Amino acid sequence: MARRLVIIGGDAAGMSAASQARRMTSSEKLEIVVFERSSRTSYAACGLPYLVGGFVKSADSLVARTPEQHRAKGIDVRTRHEVTAIDAEASTVTVRDLDTGRGSVLHYDELLIGTGAAGISPPWPGIDAQGVLQLRTFDDAAEVERLLGAGARRAVVVGAGYVGLEVAEGLLERGLDVTVVERLDAPMAAVLDAEMAAGVADAMRAAGIDLRLGTAVTGFTAVGGRVTAVETAAGPVPADLAVIGLGVRPNAELARAAGIGVGEAGGIIVDDHLRTGTAHVWAAGDCVESRHRVTGRPVVVALGTHANKQGRVAGTNIAGGDAAFGGVLGTAITRFQDVEIARTGLTEREAAAAGFDAIGVVTEASSRAHYYPGAQPMKIKIVAARGSGRLLGAQIVGGAGAGKRIDVLATALWNEMTVAELAGMDLAYAPPFSPVWDPVLLAAGKATTRV
Amino acid sequence: MARRLVIIGGDAAGMSAASQARRMTSSEKLEIVVFERSSRTSYAACGLPYLVGGFVKSADSLVARTPEQHRAKGIDVRTRHEVTAIDAEASTVTVRDLDTGRGSVLHYDELLIGTGAAGISPPWPGIDAQGVLQLRTFDDAAEVERLLGAGARRAVVVGAGYVGLEVAEGLLERGLDVTVVERLDAPMAAVLDAEMAAGVADAMRAAGIDLRLGTAVTGFTAVGGRVTAVETAAGPVPADLAVIGLGVRPNAELARAAGIGVGEAGGIIVDDHLRTGTAHVWAAGDCVESRHRVTGRPVVVALGTHANKQGRVAGTNIAGGDAAFGGVLGTAITRFQDVEIARTGLTEREAAAAGFDAIGVVTEASSRAHYYPGAQPMKIKIVAARGSGRLLGAQIVGGAGAGKRIDVLATALWNEMTVAELAGMDLAYAPPFSPVWDPVLLAAGKATTRV
Repeated sequence: MARRLVIIGGDAAGMSAASQARRMTSSEKLEIVVFERSSRTSYAACGLPYLVGGFVKSADSLVARTPEQHRAKGIDVRTRHEVTAIDAEASTVTVRDLDTGRGSVLHYDELLIGTGAAGISPPWPGIDAQGVLQLRTFDDAAEVERLLGAGARRAVVVGAGYVGLEVAEGLLERGLDVTVVERLDAPMAAVLDAEMAAGVADAMRAAGIDLRLGTAVTGFTAVGGRVTAVETAAGPVPADLAVIGLGVRPNAELARAAGIGVGEAGGIIVDDHLRTGTAHVWAAGDCVESRHRVTGRPVVVALGTHANKQGRVAGTNIAGGDAAFGGVLGTAITRFQDVEIARTGLTEREAAAAGFDAIGVVTEASSRAHYYPGAQPMKIKIVAARGSGRLLGAQIVGGAGAGKRIDVLATALWNEMTVAELAGMDLAYAPPFSPVWDPVLLAAGKATTRV
Repeated sequence: MARRLVIIGGDAAGMSAASQARRMTSSEKLEIVVFERSSRTSYAACGLPYLVGGFVKSADSLVARTPEQHRAKGIDVRTRHEVTAIDAEASTVTVRDLDTGRGSVLHYDELLIGTGAAGISPPWPGIDAQGVLQLRTFDDAAEVERLLGAGARRAVVVGAGYVGLEVAEGLLERGLDVTVVERLDAPMAAVLDAEMAAGVADAMRAAGIDLRLGTAVTGFTAVGGRVTAVETAAGPVPADLAVIGLGVRPNAELARAAGIGVGEAGGIIVDDHLRTGTAHVWAAGDCVESRHRVTGRPVVVALGTHANKQGRVAGTNIAGGDAAFGGVLGTAITRFQDVEIARTGLTEREAAAAGFDAIGVVTEASSRAHYYPGAQPMKIKIVAARGSGRLLGAQIVGGAGAGKRIDVLATALWNEMTVAELAGMDLAYAPPFSPVWDPVLLAAGKATTRV
């Protein structure tokens, strides 16, 4: 008789695990059942801001693989099914069919928790008003579309992090008046040091966004159930539409209730094989804690790229293979219009908080040879340990061709390089692609003189 | 009294060394004299094809720093001066003033040889005809301009390597009929494996270039001293203009004649501090051999980025500091119109020749999330050691955003990563910049399943 793998959550982590286990094991040996609350699988939530902005034309294109496609591969996907409890002693899950309301209990031999994360939603008065939303699902995107169709003109975005920036760009693109309200005194303040974030603020304002920094939201005013203003400590901001982009937290309650270990960062605790501390229970994706390779500490990073990798690692191990997840560096990228924004490792502030004696060095450079048309300016900040010169992190803000250079720095960081060694590396040079000293080398070279 | 540093050659290596030594040491302690044959210093020869193509508007913009600017920094630059001999016993150089013809002898305390490289120019009949040239100097570019002004319509480029490709693109851009004649059976055959080179050939032909592969040039026909055809084993090709792009070889004769060691690859032998085997004599740039980090063998790689780095390292050491050049990976990039072409490390053929049991795996990927507008296809070939999975090299051919991804692979190679570890790395992801599995990760992942 086949063993049974039950997977909770049919998005990136769950379906990657299912697909990998399916590739490695026949249906005769392993039955794979996936429970997914929504009616969709494997969709790119990270594409939603670009859908709202009109850059991406079709919601369907965000679906990497439909439930039907997964089923055709031999994965028993049950959408509109919510797992409400795990009994790790009995090796069962309790499931509710959201359409019929019926409950059932299913036995598992192996269980993978891929419950993802939920948007942070403070208990602000009025937050349930129509027109106040997060951008986490297709339904959210459809609701934005509906509000735009109904004549919404004034949008307020709460939070100037990744999603806040991307949604603000999208709504601006759609012709709305956009205000961004941020409690901290810079956009991207959680992920960039102040002198790098300043460039982002400049770009937002130059684009016509009313950026209100250091401004705490206190609630929402609604008339007839519909939002009319976002209330802040500095007064109300009129709004036909308010999008909350305050980040996410792991959906770890189901695991916690089952006695599965949840860590101080709020995610399910897993080892590098994606095993929880409970026998035959695995977890992957936005719901788990990962090891930060620079600090060695557990962190929660909700990003599709990790969810996919972790799902594949878990699927490999569940199917009897041997794979390990190498941890995260906190690498991330986004853009605001033509400004590319990227980071990896620790900011100067994070490095200090983690106990490093760190220096930060900002270098201005050009994406191409200075004489080549289209050369774009960029700023690179290198964070390195004083004395040893070990690279600890990097940030980039600049024009086209700037952002993805962060990958070189991430690779250097992964390998624990010093800035001196990094400065001497053999990177590709030709005038349309780089100055003779690539910005990364230039930045590392300057940092070398300061550590 | 000041010690005297004499530098032979005022381009990238020589002037980087001079500038670095000057930054570190006052004129009272170190006199720096640079002899340069031409009338220019620190110019970007790698920009010449783009000047010819009209992408770069002004020749002057290719000059990073003029002799006057160097002199203002306290470097005694003597242009139109050629060093004709080195006496390492006596610590002197013999110099000829090319304008007056006068010779002189100058003592040095330290000597840096930065004589660069010369274009390979086979002893073909007719090669001295007017209209047959290489593109190595400003005068060459001016001559191309003159020929175009005089009505040249048909251009033949001899050699389909980096410069051949770049010149062909430039002349096509200027409206000429362009034929490229290549002895080997693919463009970029020395630096790409066949299946990757095929994409380059396709792009060249699609652009309207008459690409003649496997065709050996035998000479040039001239009428009244002016070229009229390039003669090949397969017959003549009419030409108003013929540009030879067959690569370069180190200018090492001056060193060899002075008893300074020259290696089997044809370059001056230096250690990682850029010392030659002769006391107080250093060398840097296109004239030296560098250590290839994958094979450990000496290679000659003529590239401005190495010349700049080596010059800085030599300058640091000459000034009493301690710096080392870390070797090369053979990283390179170019483009043909919209097709970006890049490589690092060893091709599959080179790996086999170097004695590795290597596999090559080609992956097709997209530069952005599939649903994001402007996603460009690319091919990545990974070369890895069978068994260990150690990365040995990589090649990329693809659209915008493809080429510079080679730097991630170069950084991985520099750190001797395996393809399995590479596949798990934390690279930046957002839909406008990358699919959720970045092409580099995808390629490494596929290679992992094959090693």
